[in-house]
Amino acid sequence: MPNVSNVFKRVAIFGVGLIGGSFALALKKAGAVQHIVGVGRSQASLERALQLGIIDSIATSPEAAVKDADLVLIAAPVAQTKAILDSIQPHLSPTTIVTDAGSTKSDVVDAAKEALGAKLRQFVPAHPIAGRELNGPEAALVDLYVGKKAVITRLPENNDADVARVAWAWQQCGAIIHYLDPAGHDAVFAAVSHLPHLLAYALVDDIARKEHADTLFQYAASGFRDFTRIAGSSPEMWRDITLANRHAMLQELDSYTARLAVLRQHLVNADTAGIEGIYANAQRARHNWISAIEAAEKQQREGGD
Amino acid sequence: MPNVSNVFKRVAIFGVGLIGGSFALALKKAGAVQHIVGVGRSQASLERALQLGIIDSIATSPEAAVKDADLVLIAAPVAQTKAILDSIQPHLSPTTIVTDAGSTKSDVVDAAKEALGAKLRQFVPAHPIAGRELNGPEAALVDLYVGKKAVITRLPENNDADVARVAWAWQQCGAIIHYLDPAGHDAVFAAVSHLPHLLAYALVDDIARKEHADTLFQYAASGFRDFTRIAGSSPEMWRDITLANRHAMLQELDSYTARLAVLRQHLVNADTAGIEGIYANAQRARHNWISAIEAAEKQQREGGD
Repeated sequence: MPNVSNVFKRVAIFGVGLIGGSFALALKKAGAVQHIVGVGRSQASLERALQLGIIDSIATSPEAAVKDADLVLIAAPVAQTKAILDSIQPHLSPTTIVTDAGSTKSDVVDAAKEALGAKLRQFVPAHPIAGRELNGPEAALVDLYVGKKAVITRLPENNDADVARVAWAWQQCGAIIHYLDPAGHDAVFAAVSHLPHLLAYALVDDIARKEHADTLFQYAASGFRDFTRIAGSSPEMWRDITLANRHAMLQELDSYTARLAVLRQHLVNADTAGIEGIYANAQRARHNWISAIEAAEKQQREGGD
Repeated sequence: MPNVSNVFKRVAIFGVGLIGGSFALALKKAGAVQHIVGVGRSQASLERALQLGIIDSIATSPEAAVKDADLVLIAAPVAQTKAILDSIQPHLSPTTIVTDAGSTKSDVVDAAKEALGAKLRQFVPAHPIAGRELNGPEAALVDLYVGKKAVITRLPENNDADVARVAWAWQQCGAIIHYLDPAGHDAVFAAVSHLPHLLAYALVDDIARKEHADTLFQYAASGFRDFTRIAGSSPEMWRDITLANRHAMLQELDSYTARLAVLRQHLVNADTAGIEGIYANAQRARHNWISAIEAAEKQQREGGD
């Protein structure tokens, strides 16, 4: 069993917004890091993160950021992963572990293979399942990851010690570690996260395009508000996720539209039992899901795992 | 201008659950009613409502319920409207006003035309835009309607005094009165409420039918929870609403699936600009909608209307 619980001497974070900033705050609170250096495209965000105590210094280049770092976290939109990895590859010391927080994993792994070559073993892909509608350093929360899942999609090239080290970092943030393979991860999140985002965006877009959109929005109430909350998320970020995971999303979208076609036929036929069957199955499944969540939360509060 | 602000002597409520119960509690708190009599299919619910102080007495028959009532509220699932109206029609005195709280209006008006005949003028259809996922008398809240819209879809047969009296009742509950025609009402709510319910039920049903449903639900998080909250609603109630409003819902469903088809093609083509265009349009429209809601709430708090 490798000793993974040494405090990080230097952690470099690409992207000091909600995801990277919350990781930084949580590591600091846990006393798990001595120095955090931020790097990114927006100088304003980096300075704000410095002011807020999220990071301890700002790196002026990717090279400077990763020098002497024992951990590098890439917390930028997934479409930027390849360029960031390209920029650090020549400067990565053999003892530096690189990880990421992207919502998709197959594309990130592909980018890492291309960019890192023989250094691929140093890259441990991960995805913390947490978020807010807000972005930027101000949105960072010290407890964003407490009780949330962090999924590690380890590569055959990774060694156990590096994987354990990344897991330890997320555990210091309060997260519960899960393991999936990259394709399995992407299939799961296509169904329970990425497709719902697309569906919510599509509904608001559809309504906004209608001639009488103002009247429609006037009568939209709390059910609509919750259903479309995820359509308030960043279009750029979700465009990237959609493109990165489009094959799995197409499968899920086709499966979903097939269910809509069944429901449509029930409407045409005024098929009472058919409609109620689908609604009741959904309500029951959701009820069971919520009950399972609540039981797990209770167990967690009571000190189980 | 008719005097509409006299306290109701006797209000009869068919269905003393969330909607009818909250109406009763709010009228009582406002001092707008002397006696409320409950009637319904479930003796247990009626007795619970009596214990909770929601109603003052239980009627043993529709005839007994409406006798001497100045207002009758039908707060049962919409598919029961016709049977309830049939049961009270012979016993309605000319001075009794009947209203309802159904989520669909064209079907309710059709039922009223059939059941009430010459007494149709006494029926003022309405729909308070409020709800919770919970049902039954225990779910009733005195402030459920405060700041919410109540839509009245008046009929050509109605007289102004009766319409004003129903509006006054909902105003006593804290609601803001809007007027639509029945078909217009149903088209609006097909888009912003009924279709979203169908879409949420369809998604949970689709996932629950998959072989690896347990794994999928395990990774579903807060975005999924909000998106599917309305799929926790009563399947029976929403089956009725779906059937009652199926023509308008088919229109909205077809419009929506056309947008999904456009998005699907963007996925196939990896059309970055196409995907971002739809997502950004939706995010902007939702942002504007939320801003408008918040401005209206602020104005309301500050004593405007």
